Amino acid sequence: MSTYTAIQLIARPHGGPIGPDLFKVVEQPIPDVADGEFLVKQTHMSLDPAMLGWMSPATDSYIPPVELGTTMRSSGIGEVVASKHSDFAVGDKVMGMFGWTEYALSKGQGINKLDSQIDPEMALSVFALPGLTATQGLYAIGQHKEGETLVVSGAAGSVGSIVGQLAKADGLRVVGVAGGTEKCDWIVNELGFDAAIDYKSDNLAEQLAELTPNGIDIYFENTGGPIQSLVFERMNAHGRIAVCGQIADYTTATPPPGPNWMNIIKKRLLIQGFTMPDHLHNAPKLLEKLTPYVMQGKIKYRAHTLEGLASAMTGLNLFFTGGNKGKLIVKL
Amino acid sequence: MSTYTAIQLIARPHGGPIGPDLFKVVEQPIPDVADGEFLVKQTHMSLDPAMLGWMSPATDSYIPPVELGTTMRSSGIGEVVASKHSDFAVGDKVMGMFGWTEYALSKGQGINKLDSQIDPEMALSVFALPGLTATQGLYAIGQHKEGETLVVSGAAGSVGSIVGQLAKADGLRVVGVAGGTEKCDWIVNELGFDAAIDYKSDNLAEQLAELTPNGIDIYFENTGGPIQSLVFERMNAHGRIAVCGQIADYTTATPPPGPNWMNIIKKRLLIQGFTMPDHLHNAPKLLEKLTPYVMQGKIKYRAHTLEGLASAMTGLNLFFTGGNKGKLIVKL
Repeated sequence: MSTYTAIQLIARPHGGPIGPDLFKVVEQPIPDVADGEFLVKQTHMSLDPAMLGWMSPATDSYIPPVELGTTMRSSGIGEVVASKHSDFAVGDKVMGMFGWTEYALSKGQGINKLDSQIDPEMALSVFALPGLTATQGLYAIGQHKEGETLVVSGAAGSVGSIVGQLAKADGLRVVGVAGGTEKCDWIVNELGFDAAIDYKSDNLAEQLAELTPNGIDIYFENTGGPIQSLVFERMNAHGRIAVCGQIADYTTATPPPGPNWMNIIKKRLLIQGFTMPDHLHNAPKLLEKLTPYVMQGKIKYRAHTLEGLASAMTGLNLFFTGGNKGKLIVKL
Repeated sequence: MSTYTAIQLIARPHGGPIGPDLFKVVEQPIPDVADGEFLVKQTHMSLDPAMLGWMSPATDSYIPPVELGTTMRSSGIGEVVASKHSDFAVGDKVMGMFGWTEYALSKGQGINKLDSQIDPEMALSVFALPGLTATQGLYAIGQHKEGETLVVSGAAGSVGSIVGQLAKADGLRVVGVAGGTEKCDWIVNELGFDAAIDYKSDNLAEQLAELTPNGIDIYFENTGGPIQSLVFERMNAHGRIAVCGQIADYTTATPPPGPNWMNIIKKRLLIQGFTMPDHLHNAPKLLEKLTPYVMQGKIKYRAHTLEGLASAMTGLNLFFTGGNKGKLIVKL
């Protein structure tokens, strides 16, 4: 009897780094396929900042947390290797919430077939959560107009890099905030951002003022951290802020305060928090918007690939350190 | 030759109380009326928190500041005492931005005639800025639904008291935050709020938790101050926050920080700053909404009347101390 490996969540994050102590690696027999089922061998697994929320206690997270003692939740791509389901045949490439596992049994719910031409890394980097999130936030909240100035934090990340490229393609001035010279160079030289600010450098306020001479109309917030208040100060009247991530504060025991609200009135700011799971019904429309940009070569991406299922357990920490260069993907 | 008194703004507020040092009282000859003009003798002048913004330097205030050396801006009600204008006759009761002055010459721009039956204090308390602001914020941002919980700060103030009564009339649970027993009693016993919290009392967090057992769906923010973070903590998923005022921070040299933004994502909050001057084109629709409630006796108000033009100079401080009981009006 053959077995496969899966990883279960057995403890909640406690404010420090994510490590093997939160997980249990289990070996299970590869199951038989019953009528109406098919078996997927996962090949690529997506690691996303949202997973940190899924691991946390229920309180007010946007989708139910992963139950302790069950397979850690994640999206991924795999191949059908056995099927007694009329819609899925052996060899089909499929995308779904398979979790941290080598094999998954499915009845087809929430599973999408993937064109065999599409590279799995591109699918996870652009057409999955990152691209949908970027498109939803920019269009529904940012409501950007040509000539406006957009600042995006986490600009070299999977969401931020797409936000900036979409805004650039639509004629905005785009300033990205990222960590380190390599990432800053990448978003300016490869992705075509107008400018980058290294949040690890000095004189952030001065840099920001210089690079946004007409103020800031849209802030796409992925990180939190000191840049937040500085951007907030430079928002123009009727500015829009899409709050998508706050990664800087996931591991701090006492998150730092935010900016005073006086500016919200003075400038009649709109601040809207959002997470993609609320808007999945909107995915077809978002893909309709996003796809032409991809087809025209306007959306570049890079994947940061980790090898092997077990690498996921520590891989999530790269979000805290900013150690990932591009979309985090685990190759099984 | 007869003269009249007007008060000019001659200095910007400097973070302390508002006093006569910022103003100059001038005596001027009552002007003759030319063709197409009419002369208004003002009887009631409205004092509003927004005026603190109008006095401040331009930077990013929502309408241009009052120029130094010109009559201080305000809305008010008066009577036409001389006219060479075809639309306005002697004896007409009119409402407009007359400023801090006993007499004003007008060509009719921005002046509305007032039904002679309507009490001037009611007009300024309900149908002018306060009522419009309350209605705009509650309907356009709050998007309240029956059964939801609304918390409003500055609940005994001119805007807050109307917000709470509208929400109550529409079947929400309404908790008001106000300063002192008298105001708290008034909003509960006279206006019919479900509960009140005295922001000057202890254990604000415990009181708030007890009085909002199902969390908070809508926060109508008029004041800032420590209650802000406490309400923010208890917002429900998809909560809405209308940021209308931040009076607590007008006189502080270094405004305190706001709450951390993590909640904005976790709960997908909408936070929208607004000021009524942006929405004046919407006034007819707002009055259409508001008037039936007033007609049905569902909107009570009280006016806090100061006597004489000069009282305006120190009257604005009542907003900082919360010393006003109801809509601040200067009777000339």
